[in-house]
This record gives sequence, C-alpha cells and structure tokens, in this order.
Amino acid sequence: MHRHFEDQLEELKERMLFMSSLVEKAIHTSLEGLNNRNENLATQVLVDMEPQINELHLELDDRALQLLALQQPMAVDLRFITATMKINSDLERMGDQAVNIAQRALSIVAQPALKPLIDIPRMADIAKGMVRDALDAFVRRDTDLARQVVLRDDEVDSYRDLIFRELIAHMIRDPRHILQALDLILVSRNLERIADHATNIAEDVIYMVLGRDIRHHAEEKALASNE
Amino acid sequence: MHRHFEDQLEELKERMLFMSSLVEKAIHTSLEGLNNRNENLATQVLVDMEPQINELHLELDDRALQLLALQQPMAVDLRFITATMKINSDLERMGDQAVNIAQRALSIVAQPALKPLIDIPRMADIAKGMVRDALDAFVRRDTDLARQVVLRDDEVDSYRDLIFRELIAHMIRDPRHILQALDLILVSRNLERIADHATNIAEDVIYMVLGRDIRHHAEEKALASNE
Repeated sequence: MHRHFEDQLEELKERMLFMSSLVEKAIHTSLEGLNNRNENLATQVLVDMEPQINELHLELDDRALQLLALQQPMAVDLRFITATMKINSDLERMGDQAVNIAQRALSIVAQPALKPLIDIPRMADIAKGMVRDALDAFVRRDTDLARQVVLRDDEVDSYRDLIFRELIAHMIRDPRHILQALDLILVSRNLERIADHATNIAEDVIYMVLGRDIRHHAEEKALASNE
Repeated sequence: MHRHFEDQLEELKERMLFMSSLVEKAIHTSLEGLNNRNENLATQVLVDMEPQINELHLELDDRALQLLALQQPMAVDLRFITATMKINSDLERMGDQAVNIAQRALSIVAQPALKPLIDIPRMADIAKGMVRDALDAFVRRDTDLARQVVLRDDEVDSYRDLIFRELIAHMIRDPRHILQALDLILVSRNLERIADHATNIAEDVIYMVLGRDIRHHAEEKALASNE
C-alpha cells in the first residue's frame, strides 16, 4: 500500500512536469508567433496547445484530489500534494496568458509591420527564465533558486513600465500606430502575469520545502511601487 | 471529535465569508474612487484593505491545510475544503485587481477630467453582481445560481470589446487623451479578470456540490471569440 502511494506521488509529479513543459512550449510558441509575425505558430497555440493544457489541468486536479481522499497523507506529502494543486492552477493560467499573446500576435500580423519589438523579447526572456527556474526549483526542492525567482519579479516590472512609457510616446508621435502599440502594451501585461505566476510557484516551493510562508512580501513591495 | 470538526468547518466557512466581504468592499471602493475621482477612497484600498486581504488569505490557507492534515476528511467535506482553498486564491487575486483599479484611479485623478465613463460603471455592475452571486451560490450550495454566473461572463466580454473600440476611437480623435484612455482600457481588463475569478468560483461551487467538472467549457467558448 505504501509503495503504491509513493508510485502515485511520483506519477503526479511526472504528469505535472509534462504539463509544465506544454505550458512553456505554449508561451514560447506564442512569442515566436509575435516576433516573427507568424500566423501559423500563433494558431497552433490556440488550436493544439490550449485544449491539451486544459485537459491536463483537470487530470492533475483529479489525481491530487484522489490522493488526498484515498491516502490521507500527512505533513510533507500533504504539502507536496497541495503545492501541486496550486502550481497546476498557476500553470493553467500561464497557458491562458500564452493564448492571449497568440491572439495579440494574430491582431498584429494583420497590421503593417512597426519597428522591431526591442524590449518585449527581453522582457519575455526574463519571464520565461523565471518559469523555467521556478519549475526546476520545484523538481529539486531548491529554495535558493526559488528565492532568486521571487527577486527577479522586480526586473519584469521595470520592463513593463519602460515598455509602457515607450509605447505611449510612440502613440502620441504617430496616432496611426495606436492599435498596434496597444497590442504590445497588452502583451507586456501578459508577460507580467506570467512572471507573477512563476513567482507564485516559487513561493509555493519554499512553503512546500520549509513549511514557511513568504507570500505577500513581494506584494507589499509592489504596492509601494507606482503600478 | 466529530462535533469539533463540524465547528472547524463552520469557522472556515465564516472566515471565508468575511474574506469575501472584504474583497467585495475593496472592489466597490476602488471603483468609487475611479468614478468620483476620489483619491482618498483609492488610497484606502491600497493602504487599509489590501494588507487585510493578504493576511486573511494566509489564515484561510492555513486553516484549510490544518483541517486536511488533522481531520483527514472524506468525500463531501474534502471537496468543501479544497473548494475553499481555490475560492480563497480567487478572492485574493480579485483583491489584487481592486488594487490595480485603485492605482489607475490615482493616475486618472492626476489628469484633467475626461468625458463620463459611460460603459465602465455598467461593466463594473455586472462584474460585481457576478462576484456576489458566485459567493451566494457557495453559501447556499446553489448550482443553478452558479450556472447563471458562468453564463454572464459573455456579457462582460462584450462590454470589454465595446469599451476597447470606444476608447481607441477616442485616442485617435484626440491623442492628448491617450494616457487616460489607456488607464480606462486597463480598468476594463481588471474588471474582466474579476468576472473571470467569479466564474472560477461558480465552477468550483458546481464541482463541490455535484462532483462534476464544468471547467474549461467557458474557456473553449472564449477561444472562439476574437479576444
């Protein structure tokens, strides 16, 4: 019975890693669609990836609930399972953000090409790195790496503000580009939210490993900033 | 022992209702701050309400985890507790949206008054109604009411698109209003996300009561639309 439970925990972990690889791929593909003005890539996210992510989201939630119901786990295992449920929900919402980016990419492809997207790819690289590291921290139960993810959230917020100012200036200079600049502002908000979800995951990892709560510290800091 | 468990469940429910009343108040106050260009109201959300909501979020999560660990509940109770954990997380994120609206309100107060915000208050009324009904559905275990909440999400999305088009037209007509129009577009996105969280709660209520999953149906529908 105990062996069986260990196997089920391992299976839950493996399925969650599969889910996270899919979500990372969706984020990456939506951004490639945006950067390369590639309609096919953006459509792949909407048609192929999103339904798979949604299915996995339900599957993982079911697995976790079954384990809670049938095995009545204690302490460490309980924290692992509830962390998995939370991370699952963050991953699914990251998938939604990838969908939104893909939709913005399709809108942008339909418009004449603007200047290169200088800061969006940089912001995207940081956000993607945070997602990767948060999930590595989960796999390796590495609280140091998780803490680094939490700290990097500020960098993303600086880029968000920089991009916002740049694109507003652009809109004022040339109102014909208002729609496209708006699309890019919304993409930067999607990236911000992906980074927020990565931060949530990193905080859940720290709680899972140490049983100590560091949530809401970052949020208090955010309140002091100007967005 | 069993009596004690029932009391703890009741207490968890009561604290969650207190949390939800705070979140509703934060949403309401941030919107009043926006509609009446009232800096004090917006600041209240940031300084008084948000920290309280964050504290309650952690308290509720702890309570739920304790109940899972110590009482090892089955079936109906297990679904109630895990639903509470999910609803708690949606409520906290709604609180974040209220904070964002309050920040936009502060930005708007610093700018010259634009035209009345015609459709924003209407969209806000629907979103607030969805939050109220989702929580009523939770208290009364009312799956019909929960289903109505899920259906109303489309209305919110129509308003979001309407407001987006209106404000883009406004920006093009008069580029001096770009910044303020952008603030309002972002507020409409915050309202959209509040409505999304209310929809999540309604779906959790249906799952809690019936043990049946209706999640991702609304999302599939959303994919077919143009945002």
